[in-house]
Amino acid sequence: MIRAVLKVKKMVKRIVFSGSGGQGVVTAAIILAEAAVIYDDFNAVQTQSYGPEARGGATRADVIISEEEIHYPKVPNPHILVCLTQKAYSKFSSIIRPGGFLLTDTKFVKVERKVDARQVELGMFGAVMEEIGNPIVFNICMLGALIGLTNLVRPGSAMEMIKSRIRPDFAEINEKAFEIGIRLAHDIKK
Amino acid sequence: MIRAVLKVKKMVKRIVFSGSGGQGVVTAAIILAEAAVIYDDFNAVQTQSYGPEARGGATRADVIISEEEIHYPKVPNPHILVCLTQKAYSKFSSIIRPGGFLLTDTKFVKVERKVDARQVELGMFGAVMEEIGNPIVFNICMLGALIGLTNLVRPGSAMEMIKSRIRPDFAEINEKAFEIGIRLAHDIKK
Repeated sequence: MIRAVLKVKKMVKRIVFSGSGGQGVVTAAIILAEAAVIYDDFNAVQTQSYGPEARGGATRADVIISEEEIHYPKVPNPHILVCLTQKAYSKFSSIIRPGGFLLTDTKFVKVERKVDARQVELGMFGAVMEEIGNPIVFNICMLGALIGLTNLVRPGSAMEMIKSRIRPDFAEINEKAFEIGIRLAHDIKK
Repeated sequence: MIRAVLKVKKMVKRIVFSGSGGQGVVTAAIILAEAAVIYDDFNAVQTQSYGPEARGGATRADVIISEEEIHYPKVPNPHILVCLTQKAYSKFSSIIRPGGFLLTDTKFVKVERKVDARQVELGMFGAVMEEIGNPIVFNICMLGALIGLTNLVRPGSAMEMIKSRIRPDFAEINEKAFEIGIRLAHDIKK
């Protein structure tokens, strides 16, 4: 009898969110990591590294989601990169892993050069301002779009996490922002 | 002529905040790291590692504050450990670096065994409930006490960061909670 030994490679995804302070990329990263752990049974690590550039307003938040234990928490080369400012795009677009995925906002980022990645530009900020009128939920719309495009976690898991992390009086606009993001992702996939 | 070469060891502090989900240890860790970077000119890294224990409600947030670049973002053995639940204390008290510093809340943690560390128990939660009546700012009171006891960053730097991170309608009770923490630290130092 011949038996084949199949080695199944476990899922691991490395994500970098980048933007400016105040855009809420750290909050989005934490919600994604916690949704992955608490509702979708993955392990996750979430890191902010602040060097001198933080004083210039560039913010970066790393997330690793994995089926296995995570030994090294930093993300030198992400599978998935989100850039919400031109400065963040200039600084980080080169670190994306070949064959990776890049999400930018059309209002804030002009994509200047091609990287070896699927590039998606979405008008997330514009949609948030038009339909909700409050920039504070831009990050949650971005998270909705990202999850809609990548299936990193189940949308319902992220929504549960948003509900438990966000103050109740802001729940409604956050849920709406998340749904706008999912819709924008759905439109682009068509 | 004889010249002595002095090698000055640069400052690096590794801190672990631990407690249960909802106590705000992640927020406290982010405020500390950002205050250190933006107002006090240090480098900082802030990490959440979520394993299976996160689903059981144990939360851990690591911060490294350094005068130099930080290469490894995790904190296996902190100089400073904060425990806000008995479960967190049981799980993490053994990792403290010899000669380190342990801060616990008297309401939630009964210190069971001696570790080689300066141990400070403070009634932070009790003071917050008595003087403010809202448990949501317990984490900020803890941060005030920690900074008052350790001088990790300047108290004014943390206060600025709190003001810029917290929604304006919550600013007053957060500032008050921070001041209560500073006062509790001052009382214990006398």
